[in-house]
Amino acid sequence: MFKGIVEIALKPGVVDPPGVAIKESLHSLGFNEVESVRMGKRVEVHLNAANREEAEKQLQKMCEQLLVNPVIEEYTFYVEEEA
Amino acid sequence: MFKGIVEIALKPGVVDPPGVAIKESLHSLGFNEVESVRMGKRVEVHLNAANREEAEKQLQKMCEQLLVNPVIEEYTFYVEEEA
Repeated sequence: MFKGIVEIALKPGVVDPPGVAIKESLHSLGFNEVESVRMGKRVEVHLNAANREEAEKQLQKMCEQLLVNPVIEEYTFYVEEEA
Repeated sequence: MFKGIVEIALKPGVVDPPGVAIKESLHSLGFNEVESVRMGKRVEVHLNAANREEAEKQLQKMCEQLLVNPVIEEYTFYVEEEA
């Protein structure tokens, strides 16, 4: 078993209303040192694969076919082996 | 300037409908090796602080006061210095 962690963020320049809302909430709580906030996603995929290379290859395909919107999002991922 | 990355995941056992929906979509795309999917959040906070320790202290407070729901979520964060 492998665990793939995909970290998805909005591309720079893409408007992020939830990030702005969180920044404003942090300001009203007194965290005035906050300059900006960007919201992103973290997807944890548990999968069977013969080896790490195979798991990485499959995850790459999942990102391209479903998990990531390449128009507005960028991503990185890494794979860990599970017991 | 510092950049704090907060990674938020649902605690084990907490039901995750979006994760289940993604798993089913991956199965219909032919990724039958996927056992489970868990959706989480990734929050990027850009903040001013005198030093890294101060930035970490402030981020810890933000997690406790706003970013994380401790009933159902767990989190980790790290801080990077920005130019």
